[in-house]
Amino acid sequence: MHSSKVIPSASKNRQLRLDGWGFVDEHFAASPELLAWLTERLGQPEPFPSFDDSAFDPAATADGQGPAALPELGCATSNAPLDRLAHARGRGFPDLVRLRSGTVPRLPDAVARPVDDGELEALLATGDREGLCLIPWGGGTSVTGGVNPPADAAPVVTVDLAGFSGLHQLDEISGLATLGAGTTGPALEAALQTQGWTLGHFPQSWELSTLGGWIATRSAGQESLGMGRIEDLVAGLDLTAPAGRMSLPALPASAAGPDLRQLVLGSEGRFGIITRATMRVRRLPASQRVEAALVPDWASGVAAARALVQGGVPLQLLRLSDAFETQVAMTVGLGRSRFATLVRGWLKLRGIGDQACLMLLGASGSHRHADATLEAARTVTRPHGSVWLGAGPGRHWLADRFRHPYLRDSLFDVGFGTETLETAVPWSGVDRLYQAVSQALAEPGGDGERPTPVLCHLSHPYRDGVSLYFTVFFRCPQNPDVAVERWAVMKRRATEAIQAAGGTLSHHHGIGAWHAPWFPHEANADGWQVLRRVADTLDPHNTLNPHVLLDRTDRLEA
Amino acid sequence: MHSSKVIPSASKNRQLRLDGWGFVDEHFAASPELLAWLTERLGQPEPFPSFDDSAFDPAATADGQGPAALPELGCATSNAPLDRLAHARGRGFPDLVRLRSGTVPRLPDAVARPVDDGELEALLATGDREGLCLIPWGGGTSVTGGVNPPADAAPVVTVDLAGFSGLHQLDEISGLATLGAGTTGPALEAALQTQGWTLGHFPQSWELSTLGGWIATRSAGQESLGMGRIEDLVAGLDLTAPAGRMSLPALPASAAGPDLRQLVLGSEGRFGIITRATMRVRRLPASQRVEAALVPDWASGVAAARALVQGGVPLQLLRLSDAFETQVAMTVGLGRSRFATLVRGWLKLRGIGDQACLMLLGASGSHRHADATLEAARTVTRPHGSVWLGAGPGRHWLADRFRHPYLRDSLFDVGFGTETLETAVPWSGVDRLYQAVSQALAEPGGDGERPTPVLCHLSHPYRDGVSLYFTVFFRCPQNPDVAVERWAVMKRRATEAIQAAGGTLSHHHGIGAWHAPWFPHEANADGWQVLRRVADTLDPHNTLNPHVLLDRTDRLEA
Repeated sequence: MHSSKVIPSASKNRQLRLDGWGFVDEHFAASPELLAWLTERLGQPEPFPSFDDSAFDPAATADGQGPAALPELGCATSNAPLDRLAHARGRGFPDLVRLRSGTVPRLPDAVARPVDDGELEALLATGDREGLCLIPWGGGTSVTGGVNPPADAAPVVTVDLAGFSGLHQLDEISGLATLGAGTTGPALEAALQTQGWTLGHFPQSWELSTLGGWIATRSAGQESLGMGRIEDLVAGLDLTAPAGRMSLPALPASAAGPDLRQLVLGSEGRFGIITRATMRVRRLPASQRVEAALVPDWASGVAAARALVQGGVPLQLLRLSDAFETQVAMTVGLGRSRFATLVRGWLKLRGIGDQACLMLLGASGSHRHADATLEAARTVTRPHGSVWLGAGPGRHWLADRFRHPYLRDSLFDVGFGTETLETAVPWSGVDRLYQAVSQALAEPGGDGERPTPVLCHLSHPYRDGVSLYFTVFFRCPQNPDVAVERWAVMKRRATEAIQAAGGTLSHHHGIGAWHAPWFPHEANADGWQVLRRVADTLDPHNTLNPHVLLDRTDRLEA
Repeated sequence: MHSSKVIPSASKNRQLRLDGWGFVDEHFAASPELLAWLTERLGQPEPFPSFDDSAFDPAATADGQGPAALPELGCATSNAPLDRLAHARGRGFPDLVRLRSGTVPRLPDAVARPVDDGELEALLATGDREGLCLIPWGGGTSVTGGVNPPADAAPVVTVDLAGFSGLHQLDEISGLATLGAGTTGPALEAALQTQGWTLGHFPQSWELSTLGGWIATRSAGQESLGMGRIEDLVAGLDLTAPAGRMSLPALPASAAGPDLRQLVLGSEGRFGIITRATMRVRRLPASQRVEAALVPDWASGVAAARALVQGGVPLQLLRLSDAFETQVAMTVGLGRSRFATLVRGWLKLRGIGDQACLMLLGASGSHRHADATLEAARTVTRPHGSVWLGAGPGRHWLADRFRHPYLRDSLFDVGFGTETLETAVPWSGVDRLYQAVSQALAEPGGDGERPTPVLCHLSHPYRDGVSLYFTVFFRCPQNPDVAVERWAVMKRRATEAIQAAGGTLSHHHGIGAWHAPWFPHEANADGWQVLRRVADTLDPHNTLNPHVLLDRTDRLEA
């Protein structure tokens, strides 16, 4: 039996929450300790209402009119108000504000559900001919405004790709699985794991997000250190664009010109719709373990993380929380456990103070390999003052790793907003970027707000650099417009700090609409122009996702 | 001391051979055993003359005219006949035929040597304005016609990039080295290794080829299994094009849109000239070992190689020769050694017959890691019938690995031609491709020629597939036109067989001019069109390398 991965219960019949993360029957309550911690720093919040569907009037929330009249689209199409609302926004902070408050400025005019290449091609042809705006939809988990109908667009049809789902072929000699782009994480792993295989791609959004979405946004799974990023896992893929189709065969490597796969990866639906992909899969490992350690402070933790990855210790996963995030993790994750009490006492004895940073280290493979890897990690981190905590915190983290986004909704309920930002930078730039972005995020939001508590962790380490992931908390203004505006001010400030410190606009969430105004700087004017021409070639009338990647309009408050 | 890599003596003052591989003071003689082996199969050859520079008349070999009049190019420029000849051809079979026989159809009209960005930009601007054809030149080792002035081109200026050379910056925290694109392999490793670092990129052409050439053609070093391909090693790069510059910063990873680096990688000078790159480098390993094993036959060798790489054994290098190549390797590499005699006797005792296949397995890192890796490899290959030969053959191979191309010139001297082809394919396609390409290559060349002996090895294995590298031998016709024509027939046949069997046009040599007619099939019509538009954007007047990558003209006989 392959017991190392848990396949979650089938999610097909579970109802998705309209105004928050995931499924309506799933919750992650904020612990009293966490609420106390936040209240102490931010003051007493006022509850933020959740969505009241009895009061929902799509004509009122949109531009005051009903859905635009649309031509025949050649596939199943719906313009039911709640279906349109369910496909109106991603899952960034302003999306939740808009959804909860029922103030979504623009809904798609319809949701189309093509089920095969013929239907999709007909839909793209119609969109191209009739001047529609088509928005591909996988799991709808964008945190960059990627799936939000732009206010200034033509009639908008959101294209739900659930029909392009499932495992089509498994080449067990080569370890290659061909899957539909609309396949969600759980469906994908279930199909593979019943045959003893795994893709091993586990972004935090995994329960909802889809293979096509991962490819379109250059996703990185939490185990990217061992498994590689999504671009390392794609061997071949099919793209359908208004101007034609690109079917790139599965190849292990090639020197036949520039890699067109890498042009589709990260194209965010702007160049075409990814319909299927052939992925590099592996046999399920016999063992998967995550252990935890504490290091005395951030500097020693960064040095230890760098030593581990540059020393080639074959870890599957490595995360380092800064002191603030470590405090919160202890409060949230360990707060209620007997284990936590033991840990605290023991650490006091070991002289680990309040600057301590938590490290999670994962290993997988044969039992022997996992043991040897963690032993090597202990040896490498010891000179950096590591104190090993064992498997307890890792078990907690593994059990909850896809549940953390639900916590955001619980905090919203009581009135705390939270947002995350991520980037990547060479190791030599970590200190500067960490300081600059923490400062930019911590600045008070105005109107008597207190400084925002900023948490950070390193994850996805590479030999030459690492991703930094920031989490901020604030009291959420009751007025949705004010809430979004404050957030936009913070987002702009943080984005500018990231670019000034040499970080990338995104390590694993993409450009979307929200980072797009800053993208010409990162791509260089000429690089940006090249991508623009590629878009013009494949989608000559800007039919697909015109608002993402290459549109310089600031849409943070849209 | 870092003793694991040998830095060859500085090559700066060594004279390059005009009509063959490498340096004039270096030779690799064909052993009597090899000559006997070839003569037995192909018949007695007639010596093929080498180049007679006393008889060289550039006006006669070109189009009967002297070099075209050129505008002022703003940098050091030469139109000396032998300088033009030295920059007239790459190092494929027809190149050597043309160079040795002094029948090069077209020389560049001048060789330009810009030394900084300003000179290069001025040169590109002049080329763009005056309708010149500019051909970037690194080491001149193309085996795809990449650097050959096309017969139908405007005045041709070959742009020698030796001025863009050297180590500019070393970030020892991040393991990032910024180097000029014209830096050759030996100069690059010397600059890094004196500081304790290595890039670890060792293609067979390493003594001559350059960083920019590796990037432009998506090179793979012989240790790609451990070190990654050149695209895995590039963190950032600068490209200068007629329409502008792209300066892509060093980042460990990014989700900020499609990866523009991956569009430059493999662009073969068609989109611009790579001037410098920031590369991921590593500390020199303490130990580097290559051991050899024999397996009973090709099928068991392929199975063993697949088991090693899919099982995650952290080898640095893995090669498997087929039975024919194993026989030749034994004849050539071991023929004269006492060790070989011992090996033969011992193998007879172990029951290894004439279908035996040679495997080379390399490990590097700490002594302990290298030992453990090779021990793991022994364990994994044992069920496939491996018999371990120890370090002897590996030492031979390491000592000679950059000298093998010199053997080709020695064979030419006696009248044997040789050519190589390479591709990559998923593991499930190896058998079919191996059969199809071997058959296509073995077909007699016509005019009473005997079947061509075809040798093959697997190298550069990946979890999902592997590169196949074919070597063929034939008697070289005395008439250079006939020699090139026969070769072209074979090349077309083999290329079609590779595509029909699902292989890529090239695993590590690029498209150049010679594979370009088949490239639309691999890139798909739409992918090809996209690349065409990218070229139009960066180089609107087809100034740079108009004959490579995107020109469908069959130039095999040009």
